[in-house]
Amino acid sequence: MTDQRSIDLNSDVGESFGNWRLPDEDMLGVVSSANIACGFHAGDPKTILSSVRTAAANGVAVGAHIGYRDLVGFGRRFIDYDPAELAADVLYQLGALDGLARTAGTRLSYVKPHGGLYNTIVTHEVQARAVIDAIAEFDETLPVLLLPGGYALDYAREQGLRGVAEAFADRNYNPDGTLVSRREPDAVLHETSQVVENMLRLAEEGVLIARDGTRIETEAESICTHGDTAGAVQMARSVREALERAGVGIRSFAAAA
Amino acid sequence: MTDQRSIDLNSDVGESFGNWRLPDEDMLGVVSSANIACGFHAGDPKTILSSVRTAAANGVAVGAHIGYRDLVGFGRRFIDYDPAELAADVLYQLGALDGLARTAGTRLSYVKPHGGLYNTIVTHEVQARAVIDAIAEFDETLPVLLLPGGYALDYAREQGLRGVAEAFADRNYNPDGTLVSRREPDAVLHETSQVVENMLRLAEEGVLIARDGTRIETEAESICTHGDTAGAVQMARSVREALERAGVGIRSFAAAA
Amino acid sequence: MTDQRSIDLNSDVGESFGNWRLPDEDMLGVVSSANIACGFHAGDPKTILSSVRTAAANGVAVGAHIGYRDLVGFGRRFIDYDPAELAADVLYQLGALDGLARTAGTRLSYVKPHGGLYNTIVTHEVQARAVIDAIAEFDETLPVLLLPGGYALDYAREQGLRGVAEAFADRNYNPDGTLVSRREPDAVLHETSQVVENMLRLAEEGVLIARDGTRIETEAESICTHGDTAGAVQMARSVREALERAGVGIRSFAAAA
Amino acid sequence: MTDQRSIDLNSDVGESFGNWRLPDEDMLGVVSSANIACGFHAGDPKTILSSVRTAAANGVAVGAHIGYRDLVGFGRRFIDYDPAELAADVLYQLGALDGLARTAGTRLSYVKPHGGLYNTIVTHEVQARAVIDAIAEFDETLPVLLLPGGYALDYAREQGLRGVAEAFADRNYNPDGTLVSRREPDAVLHETSQVVENMLRLAEEGVLIARDGTRIETEAESICTHGDTAGAVQMARSVREALERAGVGIRSFAAAA
Repeated sequence: MTDQRSIDLNSDVGESFGNWRLPDEDMLGVVSSANIACGFHAGDPKTILSSVRTAAANGVAVGAHIGYRDLVGFGRRFIDYDPAELAADVLYQLGALDGLARTAGTRLSYVKPHGGLYNTIVTHEVQARAVIDAIAEFDETLPVLLLPGGYALDYAREQGLRGVAEAFADRNYNPDGTLVSRREPDAVLHETSQVVENMLRLAEEGVLIARDGTRIETEAESICTHGDTAGAVQMARSVREALERAGVGIRSFAAAA
Repeated sequence: MTDQRSIDLNSDVGESFGNWRLPDEDMLGVVSSANIACGFHAGDPKTILSSVRTAAANGVAVGAHIGYRDLVGFGRRFIDYDPAELAADVLYQLGALDGLARTAGTRLSYVKPHGGLYNTIVTHEVQARAVIDAIAEFDETLPVLLLPGGYALDYAREQGLRGVAEAFADRNYNPDGTLVSRREPDAVLHETSQVVENMLRLAEEGVLIARDGTRIETEAESICTHGDTAGAVQMARSVREALERAGVGIRSFAAAA
Repeated sequence: MTDQRSIDLNSDVGESFGNWRLPDEDMLGVVSSANIACGFHAGDPKTILSSVRTAAANGVAVGAHIGYRDLVGFGRRFIDYDPAELAADVLYQLGALDGLARTAGTRLSYVKPHGGLYNTIVTHEVQARAVIDAIAEFDETLPVLLLPGGYALDYAREQGLRGVAEAFADRNYNPDGTLVSRREPDAVLHETSQVVENMLRLAEEGVLIARDGTRIETEAESICTHGDTAGAVQMARSVREALERAGVGIRSFAAAA
Repeated sequence: MTDQRSIDLNSDVGESFGNWRLPDEDMLGVVSSANIACGFHAGDPKTILSSVRTAAANGVAVGAHIGYRDLVGFGRRFIDYDPAELAADVLYQLGALDGLARTAGTRLSYVKPHGGLYNTIVTHEVQARAVIDAIAEFDETLPVLLLPGGYALDYAREQGLRGVAEAFADRNYNPDGTLVSRREPDAVLHETSQVVENMLRLAEEGVLIARDGTRIETEAESICTHGDTAGAVQMARSVREALERAGVGIRSFAAAA
């Protein structure tokens, strides 16, 4: 076992809102990077602060999960933002999370766009530039976690940001490396053993297997897992344990404080 | 004329929200300290960023005008917050404004609670401690602008924060130094000449004159002015010009960046 | 068994919001009256419409669960409303729920204030009058479900509205008929057998037993149950089944459409 | 002068929100139809109720100005709604306005989609059907005010709703009857005399003149005017006075209550 064999596990955290609670803080015992909601698509300040404190206590890197301003839509719906308004919304969210992180004795270590914003900037160049430029203006040393192969990742790297690609533990892939659409029956993987096998291969060989068996070389440095149900948390735990048994270290691509 | 003869002028800025515009940015050519809305009672991120940039360009100190989360009530209504939630809301707002200020090349220089929160913590000890402790946790060097004679000001000083008292340019005072209630017909002063005379006396002698003629010694280091109407902006300009003609310097109690 | 032996079971429904789901629709198979959130403290329109449709399909009376405009606080925090604003907020919520109910082929059958508003108007006369007057202005035939012994109930009856008192299935009572404070260790009853026994006695004798054994005559025509957890739903089912076995009919005080 | 020579003037009203005031109620002395905000893109309940009462007192028809749920964007930005959520949002807004109208002694007389929603359903068939079907489900006798030539107008008529087309007083037209884009320098007409001349011709001949002089036959039964600035209100008054001098009656296409 050498130091090279390590990978990051990330998950969405801090998505409760007032009286509406999600069990996502349980993932802070599993992952190495926490995408923490910033209050625009989810997360009230008390919840966010609690998640930041728990992440810090567990040595989990704190990421800003920036999103569209849309609580009722959970940030999942495309909104046709003016780019200057989008940039300001990004800066506001980064500042808020950074402030809470510093108060909790840690710091903001990376950024991941959420939901509709994440998907939009794969191809929407105007919104992608607004988001990436805002991040760079806030702190050009912040890594940005993004979908491999998209415009946002290319543009982030052009601007000198560290763009980090991720793979999805429970999703099936097409031979060209894109995700199988959720409209297809085999879009989501439900078998823990298959997910574990895939993620071990990814960590050890840098390869994903498409649904037709094609081997896909990927640059993914992080594995996206989920914590919104008890079953999801258990699957993520299984992935982590299998990786550790195989001698793969679980480390964030971003340094925790 | 000596350096000692100086005073601060403060005003609320950044209170537009989306399509609803207030002319308060005009005050950034008049005052030395800008209480900038943080998005909870007023202020969308694009508006806030614009106000922060203009304040920085004009050498005006940037203050966080923290408020209750209540857009429809403009932060003016008492809300019976849980103190941990109030503290988190304060930290979130401070972080957001601080991030926007740093992005604009300046920094957060002080804090002023807004509206219902400002009035509540004059006497509500639980909320006062939640607010002051949160500010101290965020940055213990930040001055806090407050009503003289209240619990919040005392508590802030006990906690080692610099508490700064303010006087109100257009309000009438009772002999005991409290404000004449807005339910009384003479609560608000409308004559520019009277307002100017009062504020000159305050700057030069540290004295306010109550409505019955009583002289009130005050520790006020800042004068609160208004910019929500064209007439208010003009009155604030008159106060500034009169002070400058009398050789009183207009300087923030907080250093602009 | 005669017709007189019947009682109403009510529960809060429609409290999901966007992606945040509560299992409260399960209660529509248990209760006879549904307090359906109106969007101000909880409930997005699609959720509300779904709850209204299910209530109609199950013959459950549709009530408007009106609340303070405070999603993050779930309507549980006192807000110092201007009475004209509170009245308008009430009318708006009643209209919205009434419209959704008519669209679903049923109609609005009663009103219950929620959370902070419910508790406030037990003693806060200005808010109580604003709420009750608004309900009377909207439709003077709507019954209003309230805490027995409070100002709001008296005022509603003075204004000619039908005020309906309720008892709480899982709460302990003081000898004077008030609820044991939640700060006391025995405020909430957890034993299903005890709850069932109490509610049978209430339905059959119109009596509650205080924690010291005192018999309290009560005018309660409805029993408030909860559906926010799986355990709560089960307890409510047990109460219903026990009542039915004892020959007590479960009928709303308000006619379902 | 005969009865045939009449036309409707409509304007957006009720767009204030809490402390942010717009002067749009002044238009209730000018127009015959009021597009009243329903709280999703603008309008708090107290403002809406006030606008409804004033409209009723002035004999102005009350229309529901339904919009996307987006206060910060004033309902002007496209949001990629799920159609079932859009339909529920429409029903909720219709119910709320209808309830406030009945309380004010009048009734809801028509519907006009606002801003981003208005423009989207000219071509977006899924959203258009969700909106039109919801209106028909709420009340199939409600006329719907829409852009001529769009999908929504066609679909509304197919569903048996009365679709009413409108013309824009202060906008320039292309020869094909579409509006000159706001990106063009001559998109908006600023000369009151030209606007008055155009609207007289429209009322008397049913014709608009395109920017190249082409005569465009139009089915417009209503003229859209604006009340968001003092100058806009004055222009609308001039149009009304000129129409009345020419013997054209100002009457809503929808009956006021």
